Amino acid sequence: MRVLIDEREKKYMVGDVEFHTDFGFIKKEDIINSKSGDILKTHLGREFHVIEPDVNDYIDLMERRCSIILPKDVGIITAYTGLGSGYKVVDAGTGAGATALHFGNIVGKDGEVNTYEVREDFAEIAERNIKGFGLENIHVKCQDITEGIDEKNVDVVFLDLPKPWDVVEHAQNALKVGGYIATYTPFIEQIQILQRVLKKFNFSEIESFECIFRGMEVKARGTRPKTRMAGHTGYLTFARHL
Amino acid sequence: MRVLIDEREKKYMVGDVEFHTDFGFIKKEDIINSKSGDILKTHLGREFHVIEPDVNDYIDLMERRCSIILPKDVGIITAYTGLGSGYKVVDAGTGAGATALHFGNIVGKDGEVNTYEVREDFAEIAERNIKGFGLENIHVKCQDITEGIDEKNVDVVFLDLPKPWDVVEHAQNALKVGGYIATYTPFIEQIQILQRVLKKFNFSEIESFECIFRGMEVKARGTRPKTRMAGHTGYLTFARHL
Amino acid sequence: MRVLIDEREKKYMVGDVEFHTDFGFIKKEDIINSKSGDILKTHLGREFHVIEPDVNDYIDLMERRCSIILPKDVGIITAYTGLGSGYKVVDAGTGAGATALHFGNIVGKDGEVNTYEVREDFAEIAERNIKGFGLENIHVKCQDITEGIDEKNVDVVFLDLPKPWDVVEHAQNALKVGGYIATYTPFIEQIQILQRVLKKFNFSEIESFECIFRGMEVKARGTRPKTRMAGHTGYLTFARHL
Amino acid sequence: MRVLIDEREKKYMVGDVEFHTDFGFIKKEDIINSKSGDILKTHLGREFHVIEPDVNDYIDLMERRCSIILPKDVGIITAYTGLGSGYKVVDAGTGAGATALHFGNIVGKDGEVNTYEVREDFAEIAERNIKGFGLENIHVKCQDITEGIDEKNVDVVFLDLPKPWDVVEHAQNALKVGGYIATYTPFIEQIQILQRVLKKFNFSEIESFECIFRGMEVKARGTRPKTRMAGHTGYLTFARHL
Repeated sequence: MRVLIDEREKKYMVGDVEFHTDFGFIKKEDIINSKSGDILKTHLGREFHVIEPDVNDYIDLMERRCSIILPKDVGIITAYTGLGSGYKVVDAGTGAGATALHFGNIVGKDGEVNTYEVREDFAEIAERNIKGFGLENIHVKCQDITEGIDEKNVDVVFLDLPKPWDVVEHAQNALKVGGYIATYTPFIEQIQILQRVLKKFNFSEIESFECIFRGMEVKARGTRPKTRMAGHTGYLTFARHL
Repeated sequence: MRVLIDEREKKYMVGDVEFHTDFGFIKKEDIINSKSGDILKTHLGREFHVIEPDVNDYIDLMERRCSIILPKDVGIITAYTGLGSGYKVVDAGTGAGATALHFGNIVGKDGEVNTYEVREDFAEIAERNIKGFGLENIHVKCQDITEGIDEKNVDVVFLDLPKPWDVVEHAQNALKVGGYIATYTPFIEQIQILQRVLKKFNFSEIESFECIFRGMEVKARGTRPKTRMAGHTGYLTFARHL
Repeated sequence: MRVLIDEREKKYMVGDVEFHTDFGFIKKEDIINSKSGDILKTHLGREFHVIEPDVNDYIDLMERRCSIILPKDVGIITAYTGLGSGYKVVDAGTGAGATALHFGNIVGKDGEVNTYEVREDFAEIAERNIKGFGLENIHVKCQDITEGIDEKNVDVVFLDLPKPWDVVEHAQNALKVGGYIATYTPFIEQIQILQRVLKKFNFSEIESFECIFRGMEVKARGTRPKTRMAGHTGYLTFARHL
Repeated sequence: MRVLIDEREKKYMVGDVEFHTDFGFIKKEDIINSKSGDILKTHLGREFHVIEPDVNDYIDLMERRCSIILPKDVGIITAYTGLGSGYKVVDAGTGAGATALHFGNIVGKDGEVNTYEVREDFAEIAERNIKGFGLENIHVKCQDITEGIDEKNVDVVFLDLPKPWDVVEHAQNALKVGGYIATYTPFIEQIQILQRVLKKFNFSEIESFECIFRGMEVKARGTRPKTRMAGHTGYLTFARHL
């Protein structure tokens, strides 16, 4: 698996095939023989950098049929749960597998991600995506997580579901002492219900946040925040099982 | 190493000693024999939960003589650089070791963090803090990173320095193709100079961001953003070596 | 009425009396004879600028026993309702009279502000404050606005009340066609109920906003957003009567 | 002058002519005889509310060939300068006349707005727009404000110019004691230069702000901040002449 980057910083995931763009084509054998760090030229002489995709490159370019959580929110989830190498994570719903890939990339060989997806079509896409990236520590389960979590002694349960409160009791049973439940929900009503249920189940350190993320434009004509910006993605809620 | 949590959710890092608080004391042998998940009682009958500290608990409670980067910013750095298990990271300045600990927690046994600190007193504190948390993949170097980076084929170079541009050329030599330089700087002037230097050295995907992070207050009397909030921490800049 | 400003930009509202500060004192007759633009000196030689207070100076220095709405929010209210000279405004609750003063300052001699306050003690303070500033177009009414609005053909009804929805029907009767109801409420639940009631009464152009207002620090050591900042004041809701 | 509003809340400024839309047409005489508060029907039976436009309706619908400052920023300018009925304002550059109209609407008959525009084509559009709204207290001057301000004893000088620092000395001469200079500038470099020049000319209470303004979406499916939002408009800088 390789990624080609053109001079506009546009990226392409390219298999072992001839590669055609508006900048000209690159021969199949050049593609096959290329390795990270090479610069390939099209028949028109335009240059493409070859890199091995990291997790963000891969997620940006993989097959997706649903919206995914942005890196800024994945990063906050990682940081607030203390997610690290060797962690055991439960994730739902899988969707195209983006958060599972982020988590799998972090927990590594000694860790494990079990990701629940109730829709078969999404589970299949996620399965393909995860296989394509080459991580073997992620297991896609085509199961309804509201019916239960199979795993025990889990470090983090992450939920990107419309009704995460339906999973709070299962999360409590699955989590190790000191482990975190984390959720991503677009609506305020969701964090209200969720916090109530988390309190009922005696979760500790219950907190909800939003991350307003803004790019800065640094150009010759001047520096300023970018005008293009998402006003909202989702609220992040965290709670700890003691 | 263990952390005790009282009913106000206040945390204490407690060694093998008798433990005294305003809620009463707990006997040394109770402390020594406790394990994660236990509930200890003081002589006044107040309860303390015992947990194994995660990286955030530890950083909050460890010795610090300088300000540290907040989890929200560490999370964004992790997410945008694709930091994962097995990554090779260079970090400077170390300070009390907080970001090194976050990185070390993520890169795991197969990864490596080399953290540069020019001040001896900080390097010593960081050394103690890292040893205390038990990570063996972090190496504190009491060296001036502006004089050079020893490592090669590095995935991420992270800089929390007043003049990160002095390290851009070293970072370029140290980074593998596709690797990231990431910096944390409070001032706009710093991102202006930095972006200019990054362009000069042909870095790719140069971007600066800020993360406005706001807690939500969900109480019986109503829901609203918290009034207490930091207006600014630092700008995060990323660039990629091709 | 005059305001004195010291070299630290601290302001003092000073009547016809001798004036004492930590920078020394200024004689009564110097105070009495001073006019806007003068510089008075204390017996220690420290300088104080004399100005006629504008509406913000006055509100900052007047008697207040309750929190007031910040200028940033008052400004948004003014701008979104199109408030101008000659406008007829209804305001509740009066509190110390800050918003009434802002409105009175704008609507001028040809306009009118009727401000409702149910608490007698607040109404008295507001009365004194308004008289002190010298505006004759503001009428404080010690009445419960939830029992009705006396005025007709009003341009703007502004409500800073815990349950502004109790006044929606009265506002509808009081407003001229094209006029606005505007409210300031800290909690999300309030804007939810309010928008529902506004819809029920066929109000048009119903919108709620928040204004995140941040100072910039421009110093020799660098430029950055100020770290000190309120995370939240209140949501502003607007609706139009057609 | 009248505004018609359809059932989608879309607005139309309509002169004394037959009115055609995708909802059908309304006869010229119905239009001419209509007054604020009426409901007119098209030949297809669709309803249009008639209102007298307020300053925001008018600015939204008038001729504009340049970008205008948003109400949120105009509101902050109004609130921080204490702008009120009777104020004497200098404004530059005029553009299509939007800020001049906002100011003229507030200062009223006893106040005065002198607005400077160096481009003849803009000055003509602004002249037409101002005449159309019917305010007689606004004077468009096709002059270069960097060459001087004719007015004296001015309450507020507002500048929406690329190099507002070129006008600081003129503003100082024009302003009354206690009066404000206010500027709107998109770039950080502009506020840096401006603050330096303001200090040099001994302006007081120098401050720069930004207003991040976000709509709230309150729908049956849930409440959340709107995703559509401008990340940046301009920085607002204020300083006072003592």
